[in-house]
Amino acid sequence: MLVGDIVFKVADYDVVVVGAGHAGCEAGLATARMGFKTAIFAINLDSIAMMPCNPAMGGPAKGHLIREVDALGGEIGVNTDKTMIQVRTLNTGKGPAVQALRAQCDKKAYQFSMKYTLEKTPNLDVIQGEVVEIKVDGRRVSGVLTMTGAFYGARIVIVTTGTYLNGKIIIGDVRYSGGPNGLYPATELSSCLKRLGVKLMRFKTGTPPRVDRRTIDFDKMVIQPGDETPQPFSYINDRVDVLQIPCYLTYTNEKTHEVIRLNLSRSPLYSGKIEGIGPRYCPSIEDKVVKFPHKERHQIFIEPEGINTYEMYVQGMSTSMPEDVQHAFLRTIAGLENVRIMRDAYAIEYDCIDPTQLTPWLELKDIHGLFFAGQVNGTSGYEEAAAQGIMAGVNAALQLRGEPPFILDRSESYIGVLIDDLVTKGTNEPYRMMTSRAEYRLFLRHDNADLRLTEKGYRIGLVSQERYQRYLRRKSQIYDEIERLKRTRVSPTSDVINFLQRVGSSEIRSGISLYELLKRPEITYENLKVIDYGRPDDILQSVIPSIEIEIKYEGYIKKEAEQIESFKRLEDKQIPPDIDYNGIAGLSLEARQKLSKIRPVNVGQASRISGVSPSDISVLLMYLRFKG
Amino acid sequence: MLVGDIVFKVADYDVVVVGAGHAGCEAGLATARMGFKTAIFAINLDSIAMMPCNPAMGGPAKGHLIREVDALGGEIGVNTDKTMIQVRTLNTGKGPAVQALRAQCDKKAYQFSMKYTLEKTPNLDVIQGEVVEIKVDGRRVSGVLTMTGAFYGARIVIVTTGTYLNGKIIIGDVRYSGGPNGLYPATELSSCLKRLGVKLMRFKTGTPPRVDRRTIDFDKMVIQPGDETPQPFSYINDRVDVLQIPCYLTYTNEKTHEVIRLNLSRSPLYSGKIEGIGPRYCPSIEDKVVKFPHKERHQIFIEPEGINTYEMYVQGMSTSMPEDVQHAFLRTIAGLENVRIMRDAYAIEYDCIDPTQLTPWLELKDIHGLFFAGQVNGTSGYEEAAAQGIMAGVNAALQLRGEPPFILDRSESYIGVLIDDLVTKGTNEPYRMMTSRAEYRLFLRHDNADLRLTEKGYRIGLVSQERYQRYLRRKSQIYDEIERLKRTRVSPTSDVINFLQRVGSSEIRSGISLYELLKRPEITYENLKVIDYGRPDDILQSVIPSIEIEIKYEGYIKKEAEQIESFKRLEDKQIPPDIDYNGIAGLSLEARQKLSKIRPVNVGQASRISGVSPSDISVLLMYLRFKG
Ligand SMILES: Cc1cc2nc3c(=O)[nH]c(=O)nc-3n(C[C@H](O)[C@H](O)[C@H](O)COP(=O)(O)OP(=O)(O)OC[C@H]3O[C@@H](n4cnc5c(N)ncnc54)[C@H](O)[C@@H]3O)c2cc1C
Ligand SMILES: Cc1cc2nc3c(=O)[nH]c(=O)nc-3n(C[C@H](O)[C@H](O)[C@H](O)COP(=O)(O)OP(=O)(O)OC[C@H]3O[C@@H](n4cnc5c(N)ncnc54)[C@H](O)[C@@H]3O)c2cc1C
Repeated sequence: MLVGDIVFKVADYDVVVVGAGHAGCEAGLATARMGFKTAIFAINLDSIAMMPCNPAMGGPAKGHLIREVDALGGEIGVNTDKTMIQVRTLNTGKGPAVQALRAQCDKKAYQFSMKYTLEKTPNLDVIQGEVVEIKVDGRRVSGVLTMTGAFYGARIVIVTTGTYLNGKIIIGDVRYSGGPNGLYPATELSSCLKRLGVKLMRFKTGTPPRVDRRTIDFDKMVIQPGDETPQPFSYINDRVDVLQIPCYLTYTNEKTHEVIRLNLSRSPLYSGKIEGIGPRYCPSIEDKVVKFPHKERHQIFIEPEGINTYEMYVQGMSTSMPEDVQHAFLRTIAGLENVRIMRDAYAIEYDCIDPTQLTPWLELKDIHGLFFAGQVNGTSGYEEAAAQGIMAGVNAALQLRGEPPFILDRSESYIGVLIDDLVTKGTNEPYRMMTSRAEYRLFLRHDNADLRLTEKGYRIGLVSQERYQRYLRRKSQIYDEIERLKRTRVSPTSDVINFLQRVGSSEIRSGISLYELLKRPEITYENLKVIDYGRPDDILQSVIPSIEIEIKYEGYIKKEAEQIESFKRLEDKQIPPDIDYNGIAGLSLEARQKLSKIRPVNVGQASRISGVSPSDISVLLMYLRFKG
Repeated sequence: MLVGDIVFKVADYDVVVVGAGHAGCEAGLATARMGFKTAIFAINLDSIAMMPCNPAMGGPAKGHLIREVDALGGEIGVNTDKTMIQVRTLNTGKGPAVQALRAQCDKKAYQFSMKYTLEKTPNLDVIQGEVVEIKVDGRRVSGVLTMTGAFYGARIVIVTTGTYLNGKIIIGDVRYSGGPNGLYPATELSSCLKRLGVKLMRFKTGTPPRVDRRTIDFDKMVIQPGDETPQPFSYINDRVDVLQIPCYLTYTNEKTHEVIRLNLSRSPLYSGKIEGIGPRYCPSIEDKVVKFPHKERHQIFIEPEGINTYEMYVQGMSTSMPEDVQHAFLRTIAGLENVRIMRDAYAIEYDCIDPTQLTPWLELKDIHGLFFAGQVNGTSGYEEAAAQGIMAGVNAALQLRGEPPFILDRSESYIGVLIDDLVTKGTNEPYRMMTSRAEYRLFLRHDNADLRLTEKGYRIGLVSQERYQRYLRRKSQIYDEIERLKRTRVSPTSDVINFLQRVGSSEIRSGISLYELLKRPEITYENLKVIDYGRPDDILQSVIPSIEIEIKYEGYIKKEAEQIESFKRLEDKQIPPDIDYNGIAGLSLEARQKLSKIRPVNVGQASRISGVSPSDISVLLMYLRFKG
């Protein structure tokens, strides 16, 4: 038997998901929950939902993505809540747009909990096997073939192969074929993709060493405790049980940088041994030292990999330097003088696809039924993967139902920003979500993802009744409460005067609504309680931030809403899929080429393609008006 | 850098253990607990103490080994108690020699619990890395080198590489380089061993498919519940908390066998594609069908892989047949008509060493400080591996202390039988422990392993005070109780007459000791209670079987004790290590060759070498008497 021979057919599925990482899990759960018979493959079932880097979820932009996936009925938030060992709200001192939860999870518990969730899901079959070929019939997908010659028929295939395609591990001089975390790579599928006409890119990422907790001197570090009142990620949880195990902060120093500089010639990154392009926003330590020569120190967080292990993750120390250099530079750091490495840091190079080959619903433009999601689309990060996974899954299911695609735009979600960036602009390095990528950040908040998305998820059929009811309750509490605060007026009674004095707020002369008072920075929903006699006693903890932000930032939010409206005007102008740009007089040559390649679904998307100018857009608008 | 280049030295250790399977874990824990600085390596830390086959521990002979390792202060019993999800006493209806516990464990929990135990053990460093070379200095070991060029100095190296050396996975026509469970094999170390003059053999083993619990019809199977009063494996536990999740029994049938027979030409076993030698006592299903053509059915047990997974193990269905045949034959079985495979069955071929190259303390005869333990010595099974592991560890530590080796003989333990068989007779197939291999089975019982071994483990320094005190308590309870029962006489009072009638025992005319009464088959320590007025109320549950067996089988045990005495006479006749067999007149040529090769440590061992006749032994005895 040769690789690629069909030996036998196992079964027919509606959907086959190739990969059970963070993208694949969401994709498979979505199609199965939406009623379609789904098979999900992993090269090794013990690696389902593995976090090959830091077992941490969330943070700014990434936490937003988790909340959005959760609001749509995804699993990443629920599973994080089940397995977190520390959770903190980041950026509490900053504006509402950048506040987000960040959780440390138990790495193994996260994996096995997600695996069990998949196993228990009706319509979903979990299968160990390496997919070596995607079979197509004309330009339509027909199934997948595994290394053992087993063929699985499929109407839709979703490829979520992460960093496994032709994976190469690099540690200094040592270079070998491998997937993340000591697992097997997928060595056959890339060439099949090439044969199908898919354009591949070569990216790289890396991970720091894991070290022995017993060999760390925590007294020399700054403790990073979890929040006192831990908040859940998922909207279905009111509260979350978490051990709140601390992390620790330390810093690199001149000595660290010197060790790295002295050994730069041995760095595969600088000696040209790494061909793949790494993430600019998540650089290796040697990268940081070279690119920021004047920076005296870099933050290093020491974080547990789980509750029942002494392995600790050294955040900030991702590297592909040789092992001896890793030992040497770690030991220059305060608290790590005697540290012992348990697992080496390494870099990994892998094949991914140029995402501009995809539609905004993540289907390959040229092969019907072939979807891509996750790191294989040129992104980096668990949350980015999960976000694409659920969208690919939903759109696969909608296509099977014969319904129009489900596209979220840039004004309603980070998911929209992410996918629009990928398919419209492409990426030339592992793409990571950041709040700065979003235009409408006061709308796309961490606290209000359910208000933005749960209704949509419910209409699609992915949101459970329980989740929907919770959303309705939260929504009505928020808006009812805002209305009540508007209606509730107080006069300068002695209680009110005392209160204002106590919180250091200027006095009032006449009656004023609680709504107006809450706009003052020093007044919070919490402290306002003493003069808010009619406050209902069943207000959920989780609605308070939303109420406060909506009131305090009312003006800014209104302004953003206006911008969104004009944005929407262009988004709403659909472009027919069969448009022929060469037949449109007045378009620049570059615009013609770019538009023909990207095939934007609306004028908004067209306007964001680099090389398409405002005047090209005017021409396009004219043409569409004239045609319509 | 080339594989084999030393790039840098990490540290000096007393002991390096290459491998963290069941053998490596016991070896590393033993040397570290005995005070020696130890490093333990695994190719992937997530595979520590992995059970690539059935997550089950114990059963006849194997359960005995667990108890013995436990009695010496090992970890396998403790870790099994921590992670078992079902436990049963097997062979309760049979003689005391074959009774033993058998536990189903949660596969993942077992691994991660053992990993954490290693991580927490003082003197023990857990390191991920593939050892590619064992460095020697003359004929003495000096350290190990990893794939990344890291050198670890070591005074002793213990090799416990299991089935990883040049591992090849075989599923029907498909054949690729791989370790167990989808992990990486070790591809470099075999050639290093060859260069060191070690003779390698090629063995194979296999595992059945894992199937989806949801696709099994348990109503068509016989439920196999756990014991009502679950017993722990470890002597340090009085009781054990266990969920007692059931297993299920079903059978193959004519149709199953037909599918297999029809596809025999595609079986790698019968088409010559498997070179390695498999275990006769643990055959694949195709082997069973071919070798027992008249057998109408074979037992199949369906067993859970853990609590939080739907993966089920199909015991009895080990195979290397192609995947389509696996699907086909499984579905002929009652209850498996609609079964879905989650992971394919596969066979694995690997390099192991000819164990006759080892001393009875598991050191390579030709290289000082190089020990071998576990499957790499030609055995099969977790328990066999653990047994060798602890013995290699203890002997490594004793050698570092400058003390004589610790050898258990065939009359005091299954461990002794196992190691003596290996080093004296060798093996031409994966060696598995069975009660029939032991000569003194009434002595080598499951219930009395602590009585046989804990004192020894304590003297070596491996048994903790807690364990030792428990042992002393059990020991005195057993012997005090036997003495008390001997002393306690009852007369034919009405109570006694009633009791005897009730249990259907013949009446007594005059006084008789409880000891004598207990010899009667129908009388148990438990039912005797009603006429045993002076019975202490603190008798441990675990001592009761020992008391009963010692009394009921007194005659047989005495006879065995005599046999052991004459056995010991030959075991006690030491042979000087520098003996020259060629200089002993009267020895047959074959005996000279065999004795020179095996280098037995005593005459007993010499007598068990195949090809050494009783007359050779007489010659040897004469020679030793004359010399001494
Ligand atoms: C070393 C390393 C360091 C990283 N560092 C960071 C970081 O610092 N920050 C960050 O945000 N992100 C980091 N990442 C990225 C993060 O791990 C990924 O973005 C995320 O896991 C991607 O999820 P995914 O679902 O796309 O793919 P993965 O999680 O990689 O899952 C891929 C799945 O596909 C399966 N698969 C692949 N090929 C096949 C096939 N042919 N047949 C069947 N199954 C197949 C695999 O078995 C696996 O289940 C790092 C990743 C690695 C490997
Ligand atoms: C497919 C399969 C089926 C089996 N079926 C049965 C069965 O039915 N019944 C039965 O009793 N037994 C069975 N076994 C055998 C049982 O799994 C082994 O006997 C037992 O696990 C052996 O323990 P060990 O410690 O010797 O080796 P293993 O458990 O194999 O552990 C070997 C360790 O060595 C490490 N290692 C290997 N090479 C290197 C290196 N170069 N550098 C660093 N680390 C290295 C590995 O990472 C691993 O940690 C089966 C095994 C397999 C693989």
